[in-house]
Amino acid sequence: MKELTIRLDNGSGVPLYEQIYRFIAEEIGAGRLHTGERLPSKRALSRHLRVSQSTVETAYGLLTAEGFLEARDRRGFFVLPMQALQSPRPAPPREKPTQAEKPQAPRFDFSTSSVDTEVFPYKTWVKLFRETLYTHPDLLGRGEVQGEASLRQALSGFLYQYRNVRCEPEQLVIGPGVDSLLADLFTLLPQGAAIAAEDPGYQGIHRIGHRHRLSILPVQADEQGMQVQALRQSGAKLAYVTPSHQFPLGITMPIGRRSALLNWAGEQQGRYLIEDDYDSEFRHDTRPIPAMQGLPGGHRVIYVGTFSRSLAPSLRIAYMALPAELLACYQQAFYHGGNTVSRFEQQTLARFIQGGHFARHLRRAGNAYTRRCQALREALLTIPGARICGHEAGLHFMLTVPHLPEQALLQKAAEAGIRLRGLSEYCLQAAPLPSTLVLGYAGLKDEQVIPAVDILRRAWCG
Amino acid sequence: MKELTIRLDNGSGVPLYEQIYRFIAEEIGAGRLHTGERLPSKRALSRHLRVSQSTVETAYGLLTAEGFLEARDRRGFFVLPMQALQSPRPAPPREKPTQAEKPQAPRFDFSTSSVDTEVFPYKTWVKLFRETLYTHPDLLGRGEVQGEASLRQALSGFLYQYRNVRCEPEQLVIGPGVDSLLADLFTLLPQGAAIAAEDPGYQGIHRIGHRHRLSILPVQADEQGMQVQALRQSGAKLAYVTPSHQFPLGITMPIGRRSALLNWAGEQQGRYLIEDDYDSEFRHDTRPIPAMQGLPGGHRVIYVGTFSRSLAPSLRIAYMALPAELLACYQQAFYHGGNTVSRFEQQTLARFIQGGHFARHLRRAGNAYTRRCQALREALLTIPGARICGHEAGLHFMLTVPHLPEQALLQKAAEAGIRLRGLSEYCLQAAPLPSTLVLGYAGLKDEQVIPAVDILRRAWCG
Repeated sequence: MKELTIRLDNGSGVPLYEQIYRFIAEEIGAGRLHTGERLPSKRALSRHLRVSQSTVETAYGLLTAEGFLEARDRRGFFVLPMQALQSPRPAPPREKPTQAEKPQAPRFDFSTSSVDTEVFPYKTWVKLFRETLYTHPDLLGRGEVQGEASLRQALSGFLYQYRNVRCEPEQLVIGPGVDSLLADLFTLLPQGAAIAAEDPGYQGIHRIGHRHRLSILPVQADEQGMQVQALRQSGAKLAYVTPSHQFPLGITMPIGRRSALLNWAGEQQGRYLIEDDYDSEFRHDTRPIPAMQGLPGGHRVIYVGTFSRSLAPSLRIAYMALPAELLACYQQAFYHGGNTVSRFEQQTLARFIQGGHFARHLRRAGNAYTRRCQALREALLTIPGARICGHEAGLHFMLTVPHLPEQALLQKAAEAGIRLRGLSEYCLQAAPLPSTLVLGYAGLKDEQVIPAVDILRRAWCG
Repeated sequence: MKELTIRLDNGSGVPLYEQIYRFIAEEIGAGRLHTGERLPSKRALSRHLRVSQSTVETAYGLLTAEGFLEARDRRGFFVLPMQALQSPRPAPPREKPTQAEKPQAPRFDFSTSSVDTEVFPYKTWVKLFRETLYTHPDLLGRGEVQGEASLRQALSGFLYQYRNVRCEPEQLVIGPGVDSLLADLFTLLPQGAAIAAEDPGYQGIHRIGHRHRLSILPVQADEQGMQVQALRQSGAKLAYVTPSHQFPLGITMPIGRRSALLNWAGEQQGRYLIEDDYDSEFRHDTRPIPAMQGLPGGHRVIYVGTFSRSLAPSLRIAYMALPAELLACYQQAFYHGGNTVSRFEQQTLARFIQGGHFARHLRRAGNAYTRRCQALREALLTIPGARICGHEAGLHFMLTVPHLPEQALLQKAAEAGIRLRGLSEYCLQAAPLPSTLVLGYAGLKDEQVIPAVDILRRAWCG
């Protein structure tokens, strides 16, 4: 293990950890640090370079996140082989990857699919899980195709109370994610059936449609949501929309547009709206916006939601409420199948909801997210010219910084070690608002808000 | 709540619980017992009729299983509305439903997809789950698309050791069931691609193929497994086979047929064998049969397996080992997706395997199943003319009772309250062996073996 002597320049404006990070990355790239070689411990290097240990920590963390180093338990940091850098990397479930996408947690997490792991109710969850396992040996057997009756019962009550969704437990289908439920739904459609999707919008819908040999038609979303006229012209039978908190624009669809969409669906047999209510549990103002499914004409709405945002992405529990006639098709097609969500976790979740723990959790998490959203907005608005919209609900909003084009904003942020997403990532034919980024804040720690924004300000205005 | 006065005839040869069951079912059918009405408690009725409480229990259990009654916690048994009997019922994941298919556990469980819930290692599982949840807050975030690295690591070691499967953790994909993994695989195939499936064989493959607009071609399986000549003629690119324990025939494919299939796959680019090793963990003789994937030419084998049989159907964890070139396609297609299995349970399972608990569990469960298989075979072979085959491995075998046609065997068993499956359920074009049934015994309790066989003997020979 060699000592690393790095010339650090306090006056350069480049943060010290950044200088350490770049030096080591270059050494590895140039092969002067070899695969498998062990780096100095954080303490050793910080003492050697006379910088704080957290500075070295940040640098090592970044190098690890980018696949240059590997941390081995209690044994320190080791140089990884270069090809590790080329290997394909998994991306967040609901987004297109940027070049800089990394498997490990980035330095600051602005992704739109993370949650705050500190608000998760560990104790209650383990307790309920344990109870479930001990009291229900029968749970080891195969369950109902649509999911556990107890969970569908609890869910139907919850959705009515919180979202004004009108559905019987019998109409609910439990699945391991919204994507999987949509995939199941798509297998019920005739080959080549066309589905309209918001543009800008969730890109996953295009991948799922493509996989199932259906055509997904991008339909312009304006400041109210999907344009009904454009929807008509598309000739689609189904329309996938996110009325509570448009993804990624963050807008809430006004009642007028909702009615117009419901009317469109009502005009012809076999027309349906897919309402993805993915993060509607969180609103940062007082107005509760009931789901479209509960409005007159809502019997033409396929309502989908998930616990990925409200509890944790790793739980893999989502749900879909099917209109009667689609339910019949579903039951015929999947009659022989088995549900694909762990019965233990379904039952645990049912107890979690029925015991009132979920409502409590939503209040706690909601407050935490509201505070963080507020703090992040205030910090960002100190950036000259910065504008924010779409922050009233959910766990992400749009940030516009007019004096630089989107690509420059992304690149400068990346150079400072912060990965962000540009609005254009979510656009197919629609022209993205210029200089606009999509920021998720659920995975950002409260104490990270200020430092993260400081780095962005320096990167963009320095 | 009315008293039930039932004339019981000890001499009729019809078991007492059967008489009670029939009486109450008739009362409900005739509307003399009304919807919502509460039945006498087991104790009350057993005292009233002067029969043992277990007799009443069996009758109530059967009535509940068949949807006549509903058991409410601590409050007793209540009459269900009649239409409950018509409602569609979920079926076992890997089988076609019979008319008599029921959601709850039938009186005696001969289904081929149950497990012995008594051998499940509850304590260890809860302990490891708890550890996982407490030590890994990061598990609340999104995981790797192919599944948890720790589980794939543990699995690749286990599969090599137990099945001689040669695969890197990177080649493994974790999914919520074999059906789901096959469905993902099928989305990678060109539209209309043809897949050969064993006939008789697992019917699920036809449903999945149909859903993904692929043609599944039934190819005759003889006493050695899929016929290679017929496979050639089918023109299929892929072949789905179950060499370790053919489903449902129960035969183990000899090495000659395996090589022939591997040669077929090796002859042309893009040809693959799908090896479903669904219950290979259990063998009731000494010979260990390594997986086809580990043989020369095995690089053309897509190896799939599941924990449904070896641990529990409700866990929803299965796996697939992909050949390099398919892995590339998979990673490209699913790059943006999220894995659909709970990360908590994946990590718990990884610890379960790494800690040696799984190996221990397989030994314990294996011994229990071997004993039960032996006891059941001995009992069944007392039925005049009965023959058994396919019992060397797995958790089911074939029973032939020559003096009655299959339909009569099924019907007489059903009249006696026992649901069985005939071989013809698994045949498309192939002519099923006459008078042959497929019996699974994993879900059958040891103490049920003798009474169950007694009922069958009386039903078939009485």
